[in-house]
Amino acid sequence: MPVTDIATRVHDHGWRLDPIVRSLLDTDFYKLLMLQLIWKRHRDVPVTFSVVNRTRAVRIAEEIDEGALREQLDHARTLRLSKKERIWLAGNSFYGRAQIFEPAFLAWLADYRLPDYRLGRRGGQFVLEFEGSWAEVTLWEIPALAIINELRSRAAMRGLGRFSLDVLYARAKAKLWDKVERLRRLEGLVLSDFGTRRRHGFLWQRWCVEALKEGLGEAFIGTSNVLLAMDSDLEAIGTNGHELPMVMAALAGDDDAALRQAPFTVLDEWSQAYGGNLKVVLPDAFGTAALLRDAPDDLADWTGFRPDSAPPIEGGEAIIAWWRARGRDPRDKLLVFSDGMDVESIETTHRHFAGRVRTSFGWGTNLTNDFVGCAPDARSLGPVSLVCKVTRAGGRPAVKLSDNPNKAVGDPAEIARYLRVFGAEGFQAQAVTV
Amino acid sequence: MPVTDIATRVHDHGWRLDPIVRSLLDTDFYKLLMLQLIWKRHRDVPVTFSVVNRTRAVRIAEEIDEGALREQLDHARTLRLSKKERIWLAGNSFYGRAQIFEPAFLAWLADYRLPDYRLGRRGGQFVLEFEGSWAEVTLWEIPALAIINELRSRAAMRGLGRFSLDVLYARAKAKLWDKVERLRRLEGLVLSDFGTRRRHGFLWQRWCVEALKEGLGEAFIGTSNVLLAMDSDLEAIGTNGHELPMVMAALAGDDDAALRQAPFTVLDEWSQAYGGNLKVVLPDAFGTAALLRDAPDDLADWTGFRPDSAPPIEGGEAIIAWWRARGRDPRDKLLVFSDGMDVESIETTHRHFAGRVRTSFGWGTNLTNDFVGCAPDARSLGPVSLVCKVTRAGGRPAVKLSDNPNKAVGDPAEIARYLRVFGAEGFQAQAVTV
Repeated sequence: MPVTDIATRVHDHGWRLDPIVRSLLDTDFYKLLMLQLIWKRHRDVPVTFSVVNRTRAVRIAEEIDEGALREQLDHARTLRLSKKERIWLAGNSFYGRAQIFEPAFLAWLADYRLPDYRLGRRGGQFVLEFEGSWAEVTLWEIPALAIINELRSRAAMRGLGRFSLDVLYARAKAKLWDKVERLRRLEGLVLSDFGTRRRHGFLWQRWCVEALKEGLGEAFIGTSNVLLAMDSDLEAIGTNGHELPMVMAALAGDDDAALRQAPFTVLDEWSQAYGGNLKVVLPDAFGTAALLRDAPDDLADWTGFRPDSAPPIEGGEAIIAWWRARGRDPRDKLLVFSDGMDVESIETTHRHFAGRVRTSFGWGTNLTNDFVGCAPDARSLGPVSLVCKVTRAGGRPAVKLSDNPNKAVGDPAEIARYLRVFGAEGFQAQAVTV
Repeated sequence: MPVTDIATRVHDHGWRLDPIVRSLLDTDFYKLLMLQLIWKRHRDVPVTFSVVNRTRAVRIAEEIDEGALREQLDHARTLRLSKKERIWLAGNSFYGRAQIFEPAFLAWLADYRLPDYRLGRRGGQFVLEFEGSWAEVTLWEIPALAIINELRSRAAMRGLGRFSLDVLYARAKAKLWDKVERLRRLEGLVLSDFGTRRRHGFLWQRWCVEALKEGLGEAFIGTSNVLLAMDSDLEAIGTNGHELPMVMAALAGDDDAALRQAPFTVLDEWSQAYGGNLKVVLPDAFGTAALLRDAPDDLADWTGFRPDSAPPIEGGEAIIAWWRARGRDPRDKLLVFSDGMDVESIETTHRHFAGRVRTSFGWGTNLTNDFVGCAPDARSLGPVSLVCKVTRAGGRPAVKLSDNPNKAVGDPAEIARYLRVFGAEGFQAQAVTV
């Protein structure tokens, strides 16, 4: 006889929604590292973050219900850091270092809640924006993306029978495990989960992370998801993102020299705040070639680079050449690859660089949202290229160029100006799929 | 927070084994139909049933622990028909007919328990035998096979991690569903589960049955498993097996004429006990050609045939030709195919006979125990051709010839005599895989 816990069942009767985001720590670790820096130095800078669907052909606002989206966003706004979470952030070591978060920052975070949002619709897409002080707004990025992506999954699966659903997940598990078995053959692989923002759903991400823990063993070093890192005793992985140089560049105003200097200001501030393996350069906000050309020599002393929009091999080779030209041995250095990786590109990239430089892979969308071919009746459960980017800062438009012109973001006039200041050396257009 | 029913959990601490067979109804429906006939007419005939592994290369006694096997067999001997089960057998309609089981038979069954067994080992195989009166012994066939097969699965999966197991079942589910999607395309398909005896495990059979119910809809007419039929509101499917002619032939003693008559005595008794769609001839115990050659004309009035060892198309065509020669329209008749069927042979056979004769498929081992390619590290979870056959009856060896000499069972001298009496017309050797 199946036995059900009666109290649980009765409690469940009262659910009015099935919340997608249930903890403020259900976010990427790099947001907390960046937030501490922002909170310390730039907390009151007025910013706007905007959700943008780069996969225009998918009309998200026609797939998911606006009311359901509001309910989920509203629920996320009720979340507070729990006592256990605060104690863990204070007591856990990150990247081998204790007390990475200052007590004053954690005290501020304990009172934090996500600020209000602005939601409308235009041309089949949602217009979802977060406006306010940088320290308040920045944490919306990950929950906003996770909520929209999981609502898409739920909508796509609505009406499927119990066994169709069971088979859907069975196929997705089988598909992931085939990847695990391939990755297991890569000697010296170092890989982490970067799939929070684009995940099919929270429970699925958790399954993926636990499966990688069992399936890859030592090769799996952790997850970007802070909550999953805490719950599964894994390392929290991540360093910094584009919003830092984008905001600092916007704050440079009309001064071209200050604009050119902005990325280095960010790197200075970062290296004052964090050390060791957290010193990973994200070089492509305004083009990797420009950054390498203008960089001070001591940037070559940082632990590594995360080329995030150049093709992995060309991007990595350019950085290796730059290290060599400055007399550094690349075998002491780290390259982190996290731009739309999947098994094939991980295999190719890992083999290409084996023995020449340390590599690490952040596996995102293709880890936590690969349901292609898994749904019955050819329903689409394909991911979209959804981002939540800073679009204004200090009253000016924010810009990202990246090494792939298809990933450029911002006001056209400002993009033109940035291209004039930084140049377009090494840019290479690639399709953006995830 | 995950909530566990505390009483359930504490109760579970006390388990000393995880029983494989938990109900006397966890058996094939044809056993109950045959049992009622046996109980009524031949209950005290002394018989021996023996478990035989036709896949000699697999040394089952080295795969599974004899103590564990004894525990499972002993547990099965503790089972009694529950009140609910008895009421259901009495009150349910089978094959459209109410009260198929007599009250006196059900009263006897209510006190029934599986009799003792004899277990030894020889050459890497178990020697497992059941000896006693036919009515007592016959029900051992299915639980004995299900227990050994599930113990093999458990042994093969021992030591697998939680996610390896999860993926194993995920792959098996995905594999089965691919088959379901193919079978869905067969217009007019009629299919049932015949997979109890060779199943990977009980829970897996239940999943398969529920999945077919959702996936195939009307095309899935039921299951041979009485317990699953009861629990899932499905039709219980099955008619009669080889043990009836085998025992009746053994009881003919040295009299060749009586031996030749034995299969027809069985059919007479069957048609006195059951009518309508239960009148399905199992023609191959001593060769289909011999049975058709010697049959009285009114055997052509039976609903159908279940050719169980001839190749499906040749076997079916021979029966169709026989019906035609007797002036019957095959389109009113039924052919039931249940010998090692899988998607390919179901598709081919269904298409071959479409519009010419009604067909029905009993899908067994390849439904409930197809884990080829599903296990990690190339572990074998392949099924074996395990049978539990009557080997002696009334003090004489029992014999089955079948249309496939590789499926013949019995004492060599007796087989030679049976071949002399019945002939070997139409016999065709085929590999026996399941």
